[in-house]
Amino acid sequence: MKIICNKNDLMNGLNIVLKAVSNKSTMSILQCVLFDCTRGDIRLITNDTELGIETVVPGTILEKGVVAYDANQISNYVRSLPDNDITIYSDADLNTLISCEKIKFTITGKNGDEFTYLPKIERTEGIYLSKISLKDLIRQTIFSIADNDTNKMMKGEMFEINGDTLRVVSLDGHRISCRRINLKNSYEYRKVIIPGKTLNEISKIISNNEDEDVVIYLSNNHVLFEFDETIVVSRLIEGDYFDIDKMLSANFDISVKVNKKNFLDCISRATLLVKEGDKKPVIVDINDESINLRVNSAIGSMHEELDCEKKGQDIKIGFNPKFLIDALKVIDDEDIVIHMVNSRTPCIIKDEEENYIYLVLPINFV
Amino acid sequence: MKIICNKNDLMNGLNIVLKAVSNKSTMSILQCVLFDCTRGDIRLITNDTELGIETVVPGTILEKGVVAYDANQISNYVRSLPDNDITIYSDADLNTLISCEKIKFTITGKNGDEFTYLPKIERTEGIYLSKISLKDLIRQTIFSIADNDTNKMMKGEMFEINGDTLRVVSLDGHRISCRRINLKNSYEYRKVIIPGKTLNEISKIISNNEDEDVVIYLSNNHVLFEFDETIVVSRLIEGDYFDIDKMLSANFDISVKVNKKNFLDCISRATLLVKEGDKKPVIVDINDESINLRVNSAIGSMHEELDCEKKGQDIKIGFNPKFLIDALKVIDDEDIVIHMVNSRTPCIIKDEEENYIYLVLPINFV
Repeated sequence: MKIICNKNDLMNGLNIVLKAVSNKSTMSILQCVLFDCTRGDIRLITNDTELGIETVVPGTILEKGVVAYDANQISNYVRSLPDNDITIYSDADLNTLISCEKIKFTITGKNGDEFTYLPKIERTEGIYLSKISLKDLIRQTIFSIADNDTNKMMKGEMFEINGDTLRVVSLDGHRISCRRINLKNSYEYRKVIIPGKTLNEISKIISNNEDEDVVIYLSNNHVLFEFDETIVVSRLIEGDYFDIDKMLSANFDISVKVNKKNFLDCISRATLLVKEGDKKPVIVDINDESINLRVNSAIGSMHEELDCEKKGQDIKIGFNPKFLIDALKVIDDEDIVIHMVNSRTPCIIKDEEENYIYLVLPINFV
Repeated sequence: MKIICNKNDLMNGLNIVLKAVSNKSTMSILQCVLFDCTRGDIRLITNDTELGIETVVPGTILEKGVVAYDANQISNYVRSLPDNDITIYSDADLNTLISCEKIKFTITGKNGDEFTYLPKIERTEGIYLSKISLKDLIRQTIFSIADNDTNKMMKGEMFEINGDTLRVVSLDGHRISCRRINLKNSYEYRKVIIPGKTLNEISKIISNNEDEDVVIYLSNNHVLFEFDETIVVSRLIEGDYFDIDKMLSANFDISVKVNKKNFLDCISRATLLVKEGDKKPVIVDINDESINLRVNSAIGSMHEELDCEKKGQDIKIGFNPKFLIDALKVIDDEDIVIHMVNSRTPCIIKDEEENYIYLVLPINFV
């Protein structure tokens, strides 16, 4: 194999595919990037068996071939080179010379035969949404997936397509995050669970672009994201996701409207008195005109009063401050409305159109 | 004690004095900041017994007093408050209320009597230099102090005042860094060893200002830095510093001039092949027109050729790449000249005026 590409183009490609390189694996081929230059373009492929990425790098193929290289090693070498043309030449024994200006690196490649290509997913009926929309949806929900293995489905997010709406939901047993957007087209009903890791990596690769789309294709076991010259393929999580609508339905008789920034600042301040892992709740005492927040701990105490507009009874309710902070941070509205039943049942923060719904379980504070 | 200050003023003051708060100590008073409001100004003082800082915060004293607070705790509280006036009120039992707008923190202070004030240093014959000069001198030399306890003097930097020049030197047994600047005035000869930790902290507190001076006062056992409304006092390291001039003198018959950026990039690339702790040298082979750099390691090899101008014999010499990189990073010249004797004796990188001299020991590569 012999190819020439510009340093920055090659580095961009490598940075994309690096996201699916296994760092923990002991199977060394999983730590490799495959340079597949047999089909007329320079194609970089990585695959950690759960997640696979394939991208095309502009450049010239002087001699066709397939070689795998340790992904981190070749990335470090390429990153260190000046911004100029890079030649990668691999002989029949896979001894490889990477040269640029007066600089020469030699490394040994691995046989491409051992490499597992990405599964073939039929690309029909793609769901289109802008890059920025997908990134936002992920950012606004990913924090409430579970980080342990209690329930496999909790490690993913539900993507539900219903006509022209897409709903993304995550939950970890203490809280639910739910975001909904309108799609440009209408689609058949589909509901899948995409691994959180896949969404995190996707989010790092795609740019904050409003005008460019990502296309999502779903098969029975896989999801494929396509954008620019890149495809990302991931396994889906099997299972029947939780009945969210049931969880979110209740007679929320109490509602309180408060300035989001003030409320967020106030809770953040309160956490200064709560040591991590302490599980000490922040107690919120709501009367007709004000929210009173109080924390008492071994290191001191805090009290703050916030203006609010309340409907329904007075209520005193305790929360894990982290859960409120996580939700408030990703809400862009100036004012938020918190809906409550009593101090023992979940509260929800949602907008009128229900484009977002964040449910948080209260903590017993008696 | 009762005082009112603006949030940002108080936070600036706290950020300065936090640099002398011991995080490791078990003596809790060493983790405190003393609010001394007995002398007509709001004075914050911290002292970890090696290093002490005192700064004045603008504000109003409504009731004189002295109280000590856990420095990290009060800083966290103040940082979390809105940008407005903050009132700190401490009663006779040192129960303290920190209030701002509708927010109230309560904490308990400690008796100021336990606190160790800074040693009194006579402020005569101050040495003046600009803030940026002091910061630069530290940045350009601090990396070669020793980080272990083999020799106490190696954990500090020599400051030598000779007429109107100040020379700052650090060494760790493998290399020497040496910087010299001209002072605005002329002073009596002095030579002291200032702890590296003190210089690191000073460097973080002072701003990159060319027009404002730092004044340095020296006593037998202490150094005092004065700037803005702040003084920093540190113990000096006792001992007779190494004879630098003897170490730097040799017949450097070989000299090679090379572009600094190219040489630095080249060595940085070479380190990609050297695992940390590997102690593998970078071997530099210098002939009349070019520097050839070669590295061979288990993971691959690299070769690069750089243009240069050489005087004297050809030479092949091995270096710890980190030592070269550290020195090259803080040299601003476009071209540098490396002076060598042979492959077994130290080489030095210096400018013509000897405003900087960096000595590096070679590594045996046979």
